[in-house]
Amino acid sequence: MDELANSNNLLKTLKQIVGSQGFREGEDINKKNYRDWMGTRSIPPKMLLRPANTTEVSKILQVCHEAGQAVTPQGGLTGSVSAAAPQVGEIALSLERMKQVEELDRFTSSITVQAGVELQTIQELADAAGLLYPLDLGARGSCTIGGNLSTNAGGNRVIRYGMTRNPVPGVEAVLADGTIINGLNKLRKNNTGYDLNQLFIGSEGTLGIITRVVLKLLPKPSSQVVALCGVKEFSDVAELLLHAQKQLSGNLTAFEVLWRNTYQLIAEHLKEVPLPLDQDYEFYVLVESMGSDPDNDKDLFVKTLNSATEMDLIQDCVIAEADKQIEGLWRIRDAAAEVIQGVGFMHAYDVSLSVGDMGYFGDEVVKRLNLKWADAIVGLFGHVGDGNIHIIVNVGPETRELHLQIDEVIYALIRELKGSVSAEHGIGIMKKPFLRYCKSEEEITLMKTMKQAMDPNGILSPGRIF
Amino acid sequence: MDELANSNNLLKTLKQIVGSQGFREGEDINKKNYRDWMGTRSIPPKMLLRPANTTEVSKILQVCHEAGQAVTPQGGLTGSVSAAAPQVGEIALSLERMKQVEELDRFTSSITVQAGVELQTIQELADAAGLLYPLDLGARGSCTIGGNLSTNAGGNRVIRYGMTRNPVPGVEAVLADGTIINGLNKLRKNNTGYDLNQLFIGSEGTLGIITRVVLKLLPKPSSQVVALCGVKEFSDVAELLLHAQKQLSGNLTAFEVLWRNTYQLIAEHLKEVPLPLDQDYEFYVLVESMGSDPDNDKDLFVKTLNSATEMDLIQDCVIAEADKQIEGLWRIRDAAAEVIQGVGFMHAYDVSLSVGDMGYFGDEVVKRLNLKWADAIVGLFGHVGDGNIHIIVNVGPETRELHLQIDEVIYALIRELKGSVSAEHGIGIMKKPFLRYCKSEEEITLMKTMKQAMDPNGILSPGRIF
Repeated sequence: MDELANSNNLLKTLKQIVGSQGFREGEDINKKNYRDWMGTRSIPPKMLLRPANTTEVSKILQVCHEAGQAVTPQGGLTGSVSAAAPQVGEIALSLERMKQVEELDRFTSSITVQAGVELQTIQELADAAGLLYPLDLGARGSCTIGGNLSTNAGGNRVIRYGMTRNPVPGVEAVLADGTIINGLNKLRKNNTGYDLNQLFIGSEGTLGIITRVVLKLLPKPSSQVVALCGVKEFSDVAELLLHAQKQLSGNLTAFEVLWRNTYQLIAEHLKEVPLPLDQDYEFYVLVESMGSDPDNDKDLFVKTLNSATEMDLIQDCVIAEADKQIEGLWRIRDAAAEVIQGVGFMHAYDVSLSVGDMGYFGDEVVKRLNLKWADAIVGLFGHVGDGNIHIIVNVGPETRELHLQIDEVIYALIRELKGSVSAEHGIGIMKKPFLRYCKSEEEITLMKTMKQAMDPNGILSPGRIF
Repeated sequence: MDELANSNNLLKTLKQIVGSQGFREGEDINKKNYRDWMGTRSIPPKMLLRPANTTEVSKILQVCHEAGQAVTPQGGLTGSVSAAAPQVGEIALSLERMKQVEELDRFTSSITVQAGVELQTIQELADAAGLLYPLDLGARGSCTIGGNLSTNAGGNRVIRYGMTRNPVPGVEAVLADGTIINGLNKLRKNNTGYDLNQLFIGSEGTLGIITRVVLKLLPKPSSQVVALCGVKEFSDVAELLLHAQKQLSGNLTAFEVLWRNTYQLIAEHLKEVPLPLDQDYEFYVLVESMGSDPDNDKDLFVKTLNSATEMDLIQDCVIAEADKQIEGLWRIRDAAAEVIQGVGFMHAYDVSLSVGDMGYFGDEVVKRLNLKWADAIVGLFGHVGDGNIHIIVNVGPETRELHLQIDEVIYALIRELKGSVSAEHGIGIMKKPFLRYCKSEEEITLMKTMKQAMDPNGILSPGRIF
């Protein structure tokens, strides 16, 4: 009874901190807060807190730290490894009311926002100021920048601009005990001690809750050309990548590949998506160039593709330069992720490995899956320019239940090839059993040392990652 | 006596670990190992260890950890904040025998090397493979990659390629207790838990000793054009930067500025350096473009400078496209750092601030220094495109002794402008008194928490940073 009384007292204190707009209980909690995008786990949180500012986040954590109450931060809930999905007994802390855009500074080319601002909002604000925030991914309309940083999101333009962490000048975060670390710096170069920003980026909410950030904005390119190329074997894809990197240099902004299996799944299940190339090619490569010299950029792009054709790396190719056509080609790439719903349900994987191993990986993974499930439906696609592949798998109506067995097939192969079990999605809870496939005991021990030092009561997203 | 016996035993054990090639004592220790490039402090280490591989580094630290013996890692000793200069009673651990280049992998565009390899060696190997390692700084011939990572070096091309940490796929480091953290990964995307690489990068040897690294190589540009422009006021420099970023986009690889005071110091003290523009301009801007389309890149560059001239941002300008001419213009930029010797001795500062504040800063810092030392000789120059300025100061023969007072003048102004007391050089020992000018108590406490967790006996570069 004491425990219950304590628990009730805790909830009462938390309610006082955030006020009536700042919490939801029981049936009032939207079911979306039970789970993330992948939705493998769905558990109602003990309570949903919706603080309005950093001070409230700090007070909440101070109280929870003292009470040993576990808290899971939530952004747009578009993750896929159950990092933000509550576990039993956890309080969910959503940043959904922290959507303020505080400043756009032209001279430092930076934008300062609260962590609950959606990625697309930031993209649009940068664009309106004649600048670019380069992070881009399918969930742009619903994912939040706090979530993007917490998972160190990748996305479509890593090949040119790097992952989310490269670079983030400023991060404000609240530690487990409520201490506010105000690193809201706009400076690009700032070698004054450890880079604390990097601690919070990519640690999936386990070391602190990101509350505000300063993002670096870049000059907006004035040219964009996109091509979709049909390629006959993977070694040609790899050579085409080297060729495009060499010829287009800084202008190469995307090198995305769909394996034929994915292209065919789109043809079958998303009939509304126009496919300009026929289905005979083994690989479909989307290449994008962005630059600042529209006329010459297009010429260089066409020249690059022509020479690739002469080298027999490309069998067929469509080039788009008008906005509508460009959208059409990107629509195909985005459709690769939507096919999942068309097929019913597919488990989605996100791995990375050397480009030199990808051809073998693509063949072998399909072979191994088919050996175990003869009717398995498999699609491969991804950011090949960054060494990153997504695999989508359906092995029948029991796919969801069998996911650990599918995991084992895919991750065992990744381990053989010294790849990574998570290129951009993170580890969360879903990939925990496979962390050891790409991290040593020493590395995991060091992570635990850091977690213990920064969150001794273990209240921040406990049980995630390790 | 017991203590002395213990100390002798310790040294004996260490000698056994590294063998006769692996240590130096007493007079056999080269004086260069007493100090770093700035040389403000010069103290002989208790012993100089020169391990040949990671295993030896691990054994050394294990023994020193147990004995509570402080160790300072040394790379090329080109730092300027006394991070690698020994303090009394410390053992110096030099990576000078760890110079192996292990692999250059074309498909992942990466190179794997031991930490003692010089930056220039890596640049040349990349170049020979038709690739680029973009980090570049004046000390390239003697600084080591381990030191570059430990300080998160900046240099000449941050504007396009970012600081050293952006990105480094793989780091192997040895923790204070000898544990080897083998993060020698080649993958560009690898979201599997905390980014441990980032812990070791920029922590100035206090959290671990970097022993091997995997560096990302980039496509080598095929065009290079450089210009030196005379500009009449700082607001024009700032607008020229925005203009160049917009027009040259990904091709803009350097935007370096010399204030007139520095240009005049070069004219006076380095007469062998040809100066193509006369000394009437307030600012001299070196702009560089690198791309993959030689003909068009040059046209775009010239067009950009022409439009800047029409906008009255540039008063005069020389353009270089032949290697020799390009070298000549870069020679002027490099000369800014060499002037120090010409004048006698100058204290060199490395700060960052918003580009919008730099014009005021440049005037104000000279005014304040002259107020205190009427004959002060001051030069300003730096990587303005990254918000980074260097200031060189001579206030007379007692400059070295007065450095804390000069520090105070400069860093007080930086604090007022919310800048950083160290853009790229780090904190080491020299800037410790001023860390609080740009870091909060909470941030410093968190750094100490990490240090305590990772090096509980405090043996790794103790007393650096905080």
